[in-house]
Amino acid sequence: MASMTGVLLRVSIFGQSHSGGIGVVLDGLPAGLHVDEERLQAFLDRRAPGRNAQSTQRKEADRPRFLSGLVNGYTCGAPISAVIENADTRSKDYEALRDCPRPSHADYAAFVKYGRYHDIRGGGHFSGRLTAPLCIAGGICLQLLEQRNIRIAAHVRRIAADEDRPFDPLGEQEETLAALGGLELPTLDPSVGERMRQAILQARSQGDSLGGVVEAICQGVPAGLGQPMFGGVENRLAQLLFAIPAVKAVEFGEGLGFASLRGSQANDPFAMAQDGSVRTKTNRCGGILGGISSGMPILCRCAFKPTPSIAQEQQSVSLEKGCDQPLVIHGRHDPCIVPRAVPCVEAALAIGLTDLLLERAAEKGL
Amino acid sequence: MASMTGVLLRVSIFGQSHSGGIGVVLDGLPAGLHVDEERLQAFLDRRAPGRNAQSTQRKEADRPRFLSGLVNGYTCGAPISAVIENADTRSKDYEALRDCPRPSHADYAAFVKYGRYHDIRGGGHFSGRLTAPLCIAGGICLQLLEQRNIRIAAHVRRIAADEDRPFDPLGEQEETLAALGGLELPTLDPSVGERMRQAILQARSQGDSLGGVVEAICQGVPAGLGQPMFGGVENRLAQLLFAIPAVKAVEFGEGLGFASLRGSQANDPFAMAQDGSVRTKTNRCGGILGGISSGMPILCRCAFKPTPSIAQEQQSVSLEKGCDQPLVIHGRHDPCIVPRAVPCVEAALAIGLTDLLLERAAEKGL
Amino acid sequence: MASMTGVLLRVSIFGQSHSGGIGVVLDGLPAGLHVDEERLQAFLDRRAPGRNAQSTQRKEADRPRFLSGLVNGYTCGAPISAVIENADTRSKDYEALRDCPRPSHADYAAFVKYGRYHDIRGGGHFSGRLTAPLCIAGGICLQLLEQRNIRIAAHVRRIAADEDRPFDPLGEQEETLAALGGLELPTLDPSVGERMRQAILQARSQGDSLGGVVEAICQGVPAGLGQPMFGGVENRLAQLLFAIPAVKAVEFGEGLGFASLRGSQANDPFAMAQDGSVRTKTNRCGGILGGISSGMPILCRCAFKPTPSIAQEQQSVSLEKGCDQPLVIHGRHDPCIVPRAVPCVEAALAIGLTDLLLERAAEKGL
Amino acid sequence: MASMTGVLLRVSIFGQSHSGGIGVVLDGLPAGLHVDEERLQAFLDRRAPGRNAQSTQRKEADRPRFLSGLVNGYTCGAPISAVIENADTRSKDYEALRDCPRPSHADYAAFVKYGRYHDIRGGGHFSGRLTAPLCIAGGICLQLLEQRNIRIAAHVRRIAADEDRPFDPLGEQEETLAALGGLELPTLDPSVGERMRQAILQARSQGDSLGGVVEAICQGVPAGLGQPMFGGVENRLAQLLFAIPAVKAVEFGEGLGFASLRGSQANDPFAMAQDGSVRTKTNRCGGILGGISSGMPILCRCAFKPTPSIAQEQQSVSLEKGCDQPLVIHGRHDPCIVPRAVPCVEAALAIGLTDLLLERAAEKGL
Repeated sequence: MASMTGVLLRVSIFGQSHSGGIGVVLDGLPAGLHVDEERLQAFLDRRAPGRNAQSTQRKEADRPRFLSGLVNGYTCGAPISAVIENADTRSKDYEALRDCPRPSHADYAAFVKYGRYHDIRGGGHFSGRLTAPLCIAGGICLQLLEQRNIRIAAHVRRIAADEDRPFDPLGEQEETLAALGGLELPTLDPSVGERMRQAILQARSQGDSLGGVVEAICQGVPAGLGQPMFGGVENRLAQLLFAIPAVKAVEFGEGLGFASLRGSQANDPFAMAQDGSVRTKTNRCGGILGGISSGMPILCRCAFKPTPSIAQEQQSVSLEKGCDQPLVIHGRHDPCIVPRAVPCVEAALAIGLTDLLLERAAEKGL
Repeated sequence: MASMTGVLLRVSIFGQSHSGGIGVVLDGLPAGLHVDEERLQAFLDRRAPGRNAQSTQRKEADRPRFLSGLVNGYTCGAPISAVIENADTRSKDYEALRDCPRPSHADYAAFVKYGRYHDIRGGGHFSGRLTAPLCIAGGICLQLLEQRNIRIAAHVRRIAADEDRPFDPLGEQEETLAALGGLELPTLDPSVGERMRQAILQARSQGDSLGGVVEAICQGVPAGLGQPMFGGVENRLAQLLFAIPAVKAVEFGEGLGFASLRGSQANDPFAMAQDGSVRTKTNRCGGILGGISSGMPILCRCAFKPTPSIAQEQQSVSLEKGCDQPLVIHGRHDPCIVPRAVPCVEAALAIGLTDLLLERAAEKGL
Repeated sequence: MASMTGVLLRVSIFGQSHSGGIGVVLDGLPAGLHVDEERLQAFLDRRAPGRNAQSTQRKEADRPRFLSGLVNGYTCGAPISAVIENADTRSKDYEALRDCPRPSHADYAAFVKYGRYHDIRGGGHFSGRLTAPLCIAGGICLQLLEQRNIRIAAHVRRIAADEDRPFDPLGEQEETLAALGGLELPTLDPSVGERMRQAILQARSQGDSLGGVVEAICQGVPAGLGQPMFGGVENRLAQLLFAIPAVKAVEFGEGLGFASLRGSQANDPFAMAQDGSVRTKTNRCGGILGGISSGMPILCRCAFKPTPSIAQEQQSVSLEKGCDQPLVIHGRHDPCIVPRAVPCVEAALAIGLTDLLLERAAEKGL
Repeated sequence: MASMTGVLLRVSIFGQSHSGGIGVVLDGLPAGLHVDEERLQAFLDRRAPGRNAQSTQRKEADRPRFLSGLVNGYTCGAPISAVIENADTRSKDYEALRDCPRPSHADYAAFVKYGRYHDIRGGGHFSGRLTAPLCIAGGICLQLLEQRNIRIAAHVRRIAADEDRPFDPLGEQEETLAALGGLELPTLDPSVGERMRQAILQARSQGDSLGGVVEAICQGVPAGLGQPMFGGVENRLAQLLFAIPAVKAVEFGEGLGFASLRGSQANDPFAMAQDGSVRTKTNRCGGILGGISSGMPILCRCAFKPTPSIAQEQQSVSLEKGCDQPLVIHGRHDPCIVPRAVPCVEAALAIGLTDLLLERAAEKGL
């Protein structure tokens, strides 16, 4: 682990915000899978900065160059690698932060870990920019999953006080999910999205930032994925989701809501569907029983803390002088990263489910 | 992954609820660590069933027999292995469940995965009983951590409507933490614990069950543990915590609460302590910045769903006949596993932090 | 890694020569595989000490007790665990070695690594006795492979000056391979085996020991197993084979013999078989091309160093006094472990091929 | 595993011979290590093609571009990534091979594994060209090891009938090792090197190729590296060495030679050195006891098969037509890759020892 992970599908992410480039290696996909680069680019564009009024004003094409693994649009069995060159970097913004760590940023922890060698420019390897290679890997997996009728989608469930309606735990229509992908601020209820957009703009005007919740649904996932104990669907998806910067909580199904339910309310009754498949009438477990997928939609939510880079003066310390020191952060920062995090959540889930599918194929195929 | 995990400290858990025995292998601890078997037993007793009025009436000594790895109370460098014999098993209770899966249990998912070969007796490898070997491994790690002044403790933060006061994110007194270990139902506020106990008894009398939240604090954790991306403290602790049956959400610091905070409220201001160490005035990040420990206490919470085995009739299906079928579950079941889950959470955290400490020692020692 | 390894099929081996017991956990086998315990015991008996005149006189039943993972002779999907109790241990033989390490044994390296905490009794975790759990895991895999028409067999290719005929690289008859399993000292040419037996007895009478070579053949292995680079068949089998104590070289196909061949001599010409399958006319590559199995038999050889425990006085040091010190080793030791290593080589190969088969099933099944 | 490997030091290699580029990610090096890019380039030049008369005439700068992980010549803690652009590719040479696999090449195995999606151009991901990124990673590790007084060097021990003198198992002078690095065909005895060069030229003139043996020595390795069983020094170095194309055997110390030795000849007597350190008078074990480094030099040898691409007509098959078919290979190929493999062996060993050093630092540092 660290910046590499995975059992059969291994992902290696590299790069710092202001280094020569960032990128990803994706090793373990079978040969012969079609990757539509245009659709992948459209997916990456959902994460890209500068897409809308409320996000950071750093503008980059985020157009990956594939160095290997794809030949004429098909995986060839060798590791896929892709690089995004870094441009439009303003590194001088960051040097002062070496002495004076930004509150609730990785700066101080990275200073302890790497000393003065840490690449603090733009947050280095801790930058949200590193979700671009995550989305390259995840975007490829999303295409693979769709070819197997597995559909992953996410929406902004909440920003500050504004809350979207939840996904129907029994599943959503494809059109509903497809519509989300086209929205700058993807909500099921457009009016909630508009209120969120206003709240973000207001926070920015006040030099402040907002947190929120992204909710995802994975439909069409076959029953039987995951392993008991440490290799369960929840264990593995959570391990990937916490790789997205600012995620501080991961819930499946009812999640924290289970704490106030009784068993008689929480249990999902089984029912035999007309096609002979076993379904549950409710889906509070979020499609996961004993760590194993049940065939019902997988539901999860991630809570994001507000962007720590705010324009207001904050209290920090001078590491060199050993005293308190006020700090004003410059640079370009999203007042709320939650909308851009939506495709990142989809990407992390897609990587995890692809790895789990491969593992399941092994046990079925032997 | 699956029932083995870890980077430098590797844990392998085996056994089914009604198999010959259950146990654990713990590989990667340096030689020369003292393990106090009596203290370990006291820790295991906190998890053991039959300890108090409200838990399952299956009574087992849960006394591990160490087969290897310990010589005269010290680790010898070889893998530690421990076995608990299974006794007092009533396997005939379970045969009917093979056809008729219990709602919100692993039965159905395991049927899809393993077919008729699944060991359904007592829940097989999915049983909560498998937290006993987890606690053996974790209990050893807890002793190791305490020798390095790292203290992990947990309490029942919530059961149904009753909520205990939260841990002080800046740290608790040792006596406060020590007192928790002696309580049947560990809460900071004893009156809340008593209310919880009543609620559990009432639920049982109604053939029902309750969920809840366990909150943990890890004090004395040095800054610098964890890796960026997939190897962060949150990623790795979450991966372990979800191995405890019934955990459906994991939060760090403010967790889901971040969603309603602004950056100006959420950020933890730095302050230079008198001893020259860097502290934060608040600790909403729960001791983790960018996935790396900050030196502040690590705080996390796990939500547990209510025990799915309830005495009321429920709706299930007959897998063989392909039709709906009502189900009444027999057997011995906790109406609320949250109190017994407290040491399990401590154990999972201890395993994770020990592995992270070893990794950190590698980068410091090279 | 360490005493756990594997990608989809994970093996965890524990125990010391004189600890309470030794054992193995085998995690990742699909449910529903039949395991014939009697055949497994027959396989383990081939490795067991005290089987014949020339081996160590320590006699142990080496009868594993399965604690989990098997129900009525079938894998249930949960990790298989098995324990062999240690009995007939004479630990007092070993205490003096703590100060005075045996030449070419693990004693000194273990002293550096574990200090005085090393369990030196019987060699601790480094003992050849730990190949018993390896053979339990491997013996199960051998049965699984045979069910898929994959046949692994090994013979003593060489001991000291006596050399058996090599396996035919294009494959051997089943009867030839089956006959090997019944021999105390398995050679293809019985007269060579008798000469080897005499050589071993003579070495023992002289207080000396002998090394040798075990050669193995794996027939019926489908083409396409293995991954490029670090995950090739050779990489993974070698990693496992070197886990057998005393192995100091691993060769595939012509192995070291390639050094004196020209390409025109070394290359294996292809030929289309009558059944439409692609074969090679020779098999110098030993069934592996570019790290991937070719469908031809896999051939490998392992060289074993002579048992370092000999009865003659040797030169060692006193670690405490810091001076040279002669050493005479007592205890029971094989003058040549090569015959007993034959099933161990088969076991290691079976574990590796099963893991590779599972991985291949994943890529085919997705 | 596959094209990623490692425990604490993780390596991910990507690229095909004729894809956009090839490269490597190296994750897990502590921050603050100095990397001298000029010395690294000098190391890579030892592997580069077109360096001398007898190697392939494909000429490429093989100059890596570092995208991340290094700032001003020091590791920053984030993963190091480096890319080499592919140029001078003549892909049309290869299309015919898709139907007609080259004997003893990966073509056929890759066809089975990847079908028509395999990138056959230049051997794809199986190309010897992929040792360039291995050497980037290894070259960095070599610098790190030298900073800790660990010195790795290799020479051509044998090509066809010509054999260089072996390394002194008790260690070589630094000047001797340094001199090897400057030679086109590194041998300890220059006259042997000249004979080898003549043999290679002669083989080429005959449209043929030669195999050989590379021997390596690792001096200054501290005792205590490695883990028992699957994590031993031999297991891990062998797993890495077999990643170098054409390696078919790996030996440590006396290796296969042990088969003809008696214990009394094979054992390495201990002796207390004047500085109080424990040494052995001989070093037949090659610096490894029970899988753990002993403090003596580590010695290993790898056998390479002759380059399978020879100019003579060979027997192959037409996969499409299902019949035998003669094949004449075009393209640029080394008649003997052994000289260029020397730095690759050093690189693989350096990666393995660095990972083992990190693991050892963990157990010492805890």
